[in-house]
Parts: sequence; structure tokens; C-alpha cells
Amino acid sequence: MSMIYPVILSGGVGTRLWPLSRSQFPKQLLALAGESTLIQDTALRASGGNFAAPLIVCNQEHRFLIAEQMRAAGISPLGILLEPVGRNTAPAAAIAALTIAERDPDGILLLLPADHVVTNRPAFADAVGHAARAAQDNHLVTFGIEPSRPETGYGYVRRGKPLAGSQSVFAVARFVEKPDLPTAKSYIESGDYYWNSGMFAFRAAAFLAEMEKLAPDILVACRAAMAEGRKETDFFHLAAKPFAQCRSISIDYAVMEHTDKAAVVPVEMGWSDIGAWDALWDIGGKDDSGNVTRGDVLCHGVRNTYLRSDGPLVAVVGVDDLVVVATRDAVLVSRKDKAQDVKKIVDQLASAGRDEHIVPAK
Amino acid sequence: MSMIYPVILSGGVGTRLWPLSRSQFPKQLLALAGESTLIQDTALRASGGNFAAPLIVCNQEHRFLIAEQMRAAGISPLGILLEPVGRNTAPAAAIAALTIAERDPDGILLLLPADHVVTNRPAFADAVGHAARAAQDNHLVTFGIEPSRPETGYGYVRRGKPLAGSQSVFAVARFVEKPDLPTAKSYIESGDYYWNSGMFAFRAAAFLAEMEKLAPDILVACRAAMAEGRKETDFFHLAAKPFAQCRSISIDYAVMEHTDKAAVVPVEMGWSDIGAWDALWDIGGKDDSGNVTRGDVLCHGVRNTYLRSDGPLVAVVGVDDLVVVATRDAVLVSRKDKAQDVKKIVDQLASAGRDEHIVPAK
Repeated sequence: MSMIYPVILSGGVGTRLWPLSRSQFPKQLLALAGESTLIQDTALRASGGNFAAPLIVCNQEHRFLIAEQMRAAGISPLGILLEPVGRNTAPAAAIAALTIAERDPDGILLLLPADHVVTNRPAFADAVGHAARAAQDNHLVTFGIEPSRPETGYGYVRRGKPLAGSQSVFAVARFVEKPDLPTAKSYIESGDYYWNSGMFAFRAAAFLAEMEKLAPDILVACRAAMAEGRKETDFFHLAAKPFAQCRSISIDYAVMEHTDKAAVVPVEMGWSDIGAWDALWDIGGKDDSGNVTRGDVLCHGVRNTYLRSDGPLVAVVGVDDLVVVATRDAVLVSRKDKAQDVKKIVDQLASAGRDEHIVPAK
Repeated sequence: MSMIYPVILSGGVGTRLWPLSRSQFPKQLLALAGESTLIQDTALRASGGNFAAPLIVCNQEHRFLIAEQMRAAGISPLGILLEPVGRNTAPAAAIAALTIAERDPDGILLLLPADHVVTNRPAFADAVGHAARAAQDNHLVTFGIEPSRPETGYGYVRRGKPLAGSQSVFAVARFVEKPDLPTAKSYIESGDYYWNSGMFAFRAAAFLAEMEKLAPDILVACRAAMAEGRKETDFFHLAAKPFAQCRSISIDYAVMEHTDKAAVVPVEMGWSDIGAWDALWDIGGKDDSGNVTRGDVLCHGVRNTYLRSDGPLVAVVGVDDLVVVATRDAVLVSRKDKAQDVKKIVDQLASAGRDEHIVPAK
């Protein structure tokens, strides 16, 4: 069996979990659901056994924070590849595949977004095992999450026939864009559709061969960014000019939707991409009133609410279905089902020339 | 016409407006509704014209804060009488009456709680004029607020016949305790009932004569507390031992409900005793969405909500009918119609041995 190289994609600079996340301190660096940060959990989830040390691809601004979080978690990355600008997942995957291919052409890359939560680790390990076997046969494998609701915020992947000799991995019949609600409901009823998780497994050589065919310009740009790049202790700085000139495109659009080697491994593993604060209520441990609390929080007559303080005492009285999150410099109060609209607040901060969405709480 | 001596009763150590109010920084010391604090507004409302400088009765712990607030408002109090412990309003009124009587036995005391809001100052001035004339005829006059709703949190006073020669002041038919809701509704329908405001006017000598008759033990204790007390610059320290031995009782129970000299002047003057945060929404200036905002506050899709920060940025999304108040060390989120229950939070703080309800925000 080939080694499995976890490739942790830490591309996000999002602020959907403001005021805790800031563009200079995005959600993958936060301990949102447990004691470890999401990127620490991601690295620890794919360690031991057949896993090599992880390769991390991140924005250069986050390099010291990430290096420190890996050190604190007892993880020595294979490398930390620094993007001068974000160019979405296809170039990041290409850079990672080129890096692994130099070292171990038979190596299998396991692409893991740094900001996902997975609560069922054995299910994750099983799915990775199935995916790795299919990857060894040169399939490009995507992880399909068993949908628990007719979510309209995700793309879906429809499974085709099982791969030869496998009961766990299927050919991909097609990828579909974010559906409307009736369509999403029909997907769930059919039982053939999965959420497209953004997690992938493939042999370095197999992926690069498909890129050579489907998106050669990206490989050219990435090879240049590596050739002209600069190693600095644990970090590798991709060269800014060629990398910036690369197209910004997802691995789905650039490769997966066009290759005939796509496969999907369905998995139910307590997965969440924590799109907004309500997701942390969904996955959190609840008290008898259905509240999820963390930090210095008091309540009276409160139900089904997410309560969190990383700063001042937070006291809540007589409310249902809210999100209340406090940091030292900012407080968010939102209806739980409006938590996506925190981006409207971030927009207001940006247009007012403020910096509470950029720099971490003092 | 006799001089009118405002007597400002700053007895409250309440925390119903927590987290802004703390027992060491109660609500009368806060700028809740405007630029001035409530005690400043109270003093300024009763100044100029026929008003003498105010006499202030307060807890000794608040003396420097109050002296400073008076200085900042350009007010030189006649004196600041310091209570070592709170003994409710009857002893405070007795101390004030004894003090004024020494200086001007014909002087009229105007007792004003320090923590009331009055938005219609001309109506206040008119009512004080009517009350002073009745007081000069030795009536003990209470101010009856025209009720705007069937409030069950206040006592009521029922008017009797107009005083001889007056269309504005009435004999008191009776005082009634806090009613239940049907009773409160019947009071409003009758048109003869007013909220008992806690504001009073009477000649010093007339009040002392009634106390001598109805509660002589209180006068004995107060005379001792003054005789054994100690003047220190602007302050007069009542002697702790005799004052502490005095009964704790309101002026209503001790005198007003028993005297045959009680009169009531009805008044509609935009009065509020700001019982809880929802009252500040009631009296506040509202934007097009019905929100009252103060301090560093952003919102999106928010209606009929009171939003205030004296500390961090507060951002609120998609909620209706809430109160959100932030200070540097504590945040309160409450349903507006549950704002009274903030006392449950203060109880929790007290039983946990914390001090956020005692000391001001750092």
C-alpha cells in the first residue's frame, strides 16, 4: 500500500464566523468545537498508521500561527507551502501534487480543507481506506457526504455504478451545482446524491496526468511558482508573480467535472464545514434547555441558543434560538437562522474603514 | 411665597439596569437617557426661580461620585447628607426636614428621587407650583402620575375632592397597594387614580408635626443621628449607630397613608422611574425600524430593539424586541418583555461570589 500524504488546504480568509474569525485569524485557526483548533484536528485526524506527515498549503500571512499550532499539537509537517495570494483549490492541489510527486510518485494525496469538523473519526478512517484503494487504481476520488437535509448551499455529486471489485466506492455519474430547494429534496429522496465535501484522494502522478490534459496552463504557472520560489526553514514561499498569474479555479471545475476517472466514496462521519454560527449549535453538546454554552456565560429562561464568550461575561435572559458570541472587542447577537447575515455586518465594517473584521480581538 | 428646597433622594443601590448599573455605581449616576446623569437631570430640573440649592441624601459610598457630578453640572448643593446604611424614604425625609427646618421653618421641601426621568419640564414646573401652594397651606402633597397603562408594578393614589380654591390639587381619598391587572384596568377606566410617584412637597414644619404624631420613634433616631453626626467639608455624616437603629420604612407607610393632610397634584410630564431596560426603549428616540441605539452599534434586519454599548462594538442581526447592552466587562441580551429578569442574573452573580454586579466595569 502506498503512503497517504495528507494535504491540508488552509486557504480560507473568511469571516463568516465573525467576531471570532477575522481575516488575519480565520476559522481554521480557532478552537471552535473542542480544545484543539480546526486545523489541528484536521492534522490529527490524518495521522499515524499509513499517513505521512502532512503537507500544508496556506496563505503566507498565516504561516507563523499555523506553524505554532502544529508545534503545539506535536505535528511536524512535511512542509508548509505559502501562497502569496489565494487562487482557489486547483492550483493549491497542483502545487501539492508536484511536491509529493518529487518525493514519492506513487504517493496518494489526501486533500483536506483545514476548516471542516468530523465527529466520527472511525468512519473517516474507513472512508479514507476505501478512497486510497480506489486512488491506487488511478481514480480521482471525492468524498461524498450522506446528506442529512436538503441543503441548497452545497454542490452535490451523483453516484454511478460501483467500481469493479468495490462495494464502497462508485463511479461519479455527475457533479451538480448548488440546487434549489425542490431539487435538493428530490436528491435526498433518490438516495444517489451526496454533498460534495471538498475532500479528495488521488495518486500524485494520476492527478498531474489529468491536469496535464485538462488544465495545462495551471501546471505551467505552478511549476514556475515552485521553480522561482524560495525555501525558508520550514516554509516554502511560492514565487509571487507566476502564482498570481495563475487562474483562480476550484479543483472541481478544473479537473473533477471533466475527468473520466472520477469516483466517489460515500461517507457519514459527522461532517460539517461550519458555514455559520448556527452550525456550531447543530454540532454542539446541548444542556437540558437545548443551549450550547462556552466560556463565561450565564442564562435564565433561555432555550436552543448558542452562547459563547472569549471575553466579557455574557448574560442572556428569556430568549430562544439566538446566537450570542462575545470577544474582547466585539459582540454578535443574531437570530440563529439569520447567522449567515453576519457577512452584512462584515460588509458594514469594511465600508466604514474599520478593522474589527481584519485583526484579531485585542 | 416660601423658598422651595429640592431634596434629592439618592437611596438606590439597585442593579435592575445591570450591567450598566452596579451597586457601587447605581442608575442615578448614569447618563441613561441623555448627556447628563439622572441625578444631574433631577437637580437641574429643580433649579432657578424659586428653588433653593438642593439638599442631597445619599449612601456614603456614593458621596464623591455625586459631589463630582454636581460640580460638573454647575450645581452647589446646600448639603450632602450621608446615610451609613439605607433606611428607606421616611428617615431620609425626616433628616432633610430637620435640616431645612433649622434654616427656614417655612421652607417647602420638594422630595425628588434621584433616578426618575421627566421629559416634560414645563409640566413638572407647573405641578411643583401647584404643589407648593398647597404645601404652604400645610398639606402634605404627593405627585400623582396620570397612568398611561394598567401598570401592576406601582402603588396608586385615588383623588378625592379638589382642595378649597384649587382646580389642580385634590384631597387624597386613599392610597392603594400594587394592584392586580383587572384592578389596575378598572383604576385607569375610573380616571380617579394616579401612579404614586414617590415625589412629595410639604412645609418642613408641617411634615415634622405629622411625624411627631405618627412616627415619633423615627424622629428620635434621626435627631440622634444628626446630633452625633459629623460635618466634613461638603458632607454631613449621619451617626451610624442611631441611624442604623431607626426603622426602615417608606414615607408612604410611615406618614402619607395615615395623615389627614394628604393631597395629590395630578401631572402628566413624561415621567418614568426606569424600572428596567425596556423603559429606556419606551422613552428613547427611535429610528425607522423602531430601534433605540447608543454607542458603537451596528445592525442588520433588527426591529424594536434597544441597543447600547459603553464598551465593545455590538453587532446585531435579524432580531426583534430585544435589549442588548454591552459594557467593558459584561454583556446583557434579554427579551425586552423579560428585562425585569435581569435580577435573576444579578442573583446568580451574587451566589457565585462574583463582583460584576457590585463594582463598575473596568
